[in-house]
Amino acid sequence: MYIGIDVGGTNLKAGLVDENGKILAVERTPLDFRGPESFAATLASLAKAVMASGGVAEKDVEYVGAGIPGAVRGGDILYTANIPMKNVPLEKLFRQHLDLPVLLGNDADCAAVGEWSCGVGRGTKHFIVITLGTGVGGGMILNGKLYAGMGAGGEVGHIIVQKDGVPCNCGRRGCWEAYASATGLIRQVREAMEAHPESLLHQVAAENGAVDGRTAFQAAERGDETAQAVCGAYAAYLAAGLTDLVNILHPEAVALGGGVAAAPEHLLLDPVREIVARECYARHVDQVPRILRAELGNDAGIIGAAMLGRAI
Amino acid sequence: MYIGIDVGGTNLKAGLVDENGKILAVERTPLDFRGPESFAATLASLAKAVMASGGVAEKDVEYVGAGIPGAVRGGDILYTANIPMKNVPLEKLFRQHLDLPVLLGNDADCAAVGEWSCGVGRGTKHFIVITLGTGVGGGMILNGKLYAGMGAGGEVGHIIVQKDGVPCNCGRRGCWEAYASATGLIRQVREAMEAHPESLLHQVAAENGAVDGRTAFQAAERGDETAQAVCGAYAAYLAAGLTDLVNILHPEAVALGGGVAAAPEHLLLDPVREIVARECYARHVDQVPRILRAELGNDAGIIGAAMLGRAI
Repeated sequence: MYIGIDVGGTNLKAGLVDENGKILAVERTPLDFRGPESFAATLASLAKAVMASGGVAEKDVEYVGAGIPGAVRGGDILYTANIPMKNVPLEKLFRQHLDLPVLLGNDADCAAVGEWSCGVGRGTKHFIVITLGTGVGGGMILNGKLYAGMGAGGEVGHIIVQKDGVPCNCGRRGCWEAYASATGLIRQVREAMEAHPESLLHQVAAENGAVDGRTAFQAAERGDETAQAVCGAYAAYLAAGLTDLVNILHPEAVALGGGVAAAPEHLLLDPVREIVARECYARHVDQVPRILRAELGNDAGIIGAAMLGRAI
Repeated sequence: MYIGIDVGGTNLKAGLVDENGKILAVERTPLDFRGPESFAATLASLAKAVMASGGVAEKDVEYVGAGIPGAVRGGDILYTANIPMKNVPLEKLFRQHLDLPVLLGNDADCAAVGEWSCGVGRGTKHFIVITLGTGVGGGMILNGKLYAGMGAGGEVGHIIVQKDGVPCNCGRRGCWEAYASATGLIRQVREAMEAHPESLLHQVAAENGAVDGRTAFQAAERGDETAQAVCGAYAAYLAAGLTDLVNILHPEAVALGGGVAAAPEHLLLDPVREIVARECYARHVDQVPRILRAELGNDAGIIGAAMLGRAI
């Protein structure tokens, strides 16, 4: 039995997970960050709560895995993106409250471990998950192990697709994330709306109350040419970064997760597959990677954190 | 004792290499390609020749390593770039002439193995070599092992830095290779010469008999502003792709090899180091990779091929 904790920017979710990746109990709590020590105490309370609700004892749990939005090494947090922590010995702090081993992974790494151990990546040796959300995250299983290099590897959103392009939060310009994230898609939709007052995008956005990651796909499905062009350009940006990754790492499969990946297949995954198959180097060896949709959804974080022991 | 064979587009070089990476004897022969069977026979003759000139018997050689310009898997060649071979069972063909195990590696992979086992990458766990020549090649040691994914990984020259940029031989547009290779540099020098008839680049090119990978650096050293701008732009392109790789893989060190890497440090490596240190994600964890100059030069291919057994 394992405990997997998904540390989000606003909430913590813990799950009690069995050997097959099945979630048996879940507990949640808001993230009320008051420093590393109280953060570790909150994680330990949450772990205790999920053991209680699942009716298992401490001795039945092999370890606690946690997915952290940032860089980790061993039981230490090196850096978190939206929570102010740097060089925090989390396992040490955690064990003051609950004496179980703590395995840490980057949150995108956990998504990859989840899909690889219990989702669409099962059985692969080299596998990548890309999450399309506020940013573009990436988790890589290489040779059957989670890969993070010296700790900050897998920042796949921060490869440039357009030198001197739009500014990215990371300080570079033209990062893949600035074009292929949901945020980047929304920006491209807004630009198209401004240039095309006649486009159905305006009506679809009004119906939904706002422009979001679905607007372009919904308007495109209803035949709007401006929206179709936005979807095509977005697919091309997404495929550009994917082809880069395929050319560097040549995985067996790549899975796309996050809200945008739920777009209709013929508007997103199909054109992306077509571009990657046409442009990637692996076509020369007839080994174009499969491009799949991640299947674990919101559970990927908990399952992946719980399964970290299989990949590190 | 090992034999390392460097298979170039026009020549084959074999070296007898000891446990410390020292080359004890070398034999060469032109590549006169007449099909996979005669190619395997040529490799075997070359291996026999280098054993003879080094005065060692077959039983003293553990294996023959060969660096191939293309993609390999196990003892098979999947594909070669400038020699017409596809799905060739090279080890099997070779053993008909000389019964020794054959280990195959991509040529850039061999450069990486050479520098990692006997050069500037000694002692690292995650290490990348980038070769700047006609193209941009890459070899990656991840977790102490050569990584090539499903066979065609490491094609790092074919990540895009400029969407819809200049056409690349691989079929994409805007590949890193099209800007950061010696070929890309020469194109940028020629463009600058056309735009700046007053530039010293013309005189330097005339003195050398042609524009080559050194022209811009030589004119820049002599104070030419146009050449200095070309060198700066080239360093920025080189740094862009390096930062991409660092963000994905976070290695401990990256070594640059190939002719262009011999440029004066203050005009190339120093500005590249400065850009990577400023832009890479690893700066958040104070772990910016070292950027080094490869040190084995022309021997890297032979030594790396001979040392393949340590990395695969």
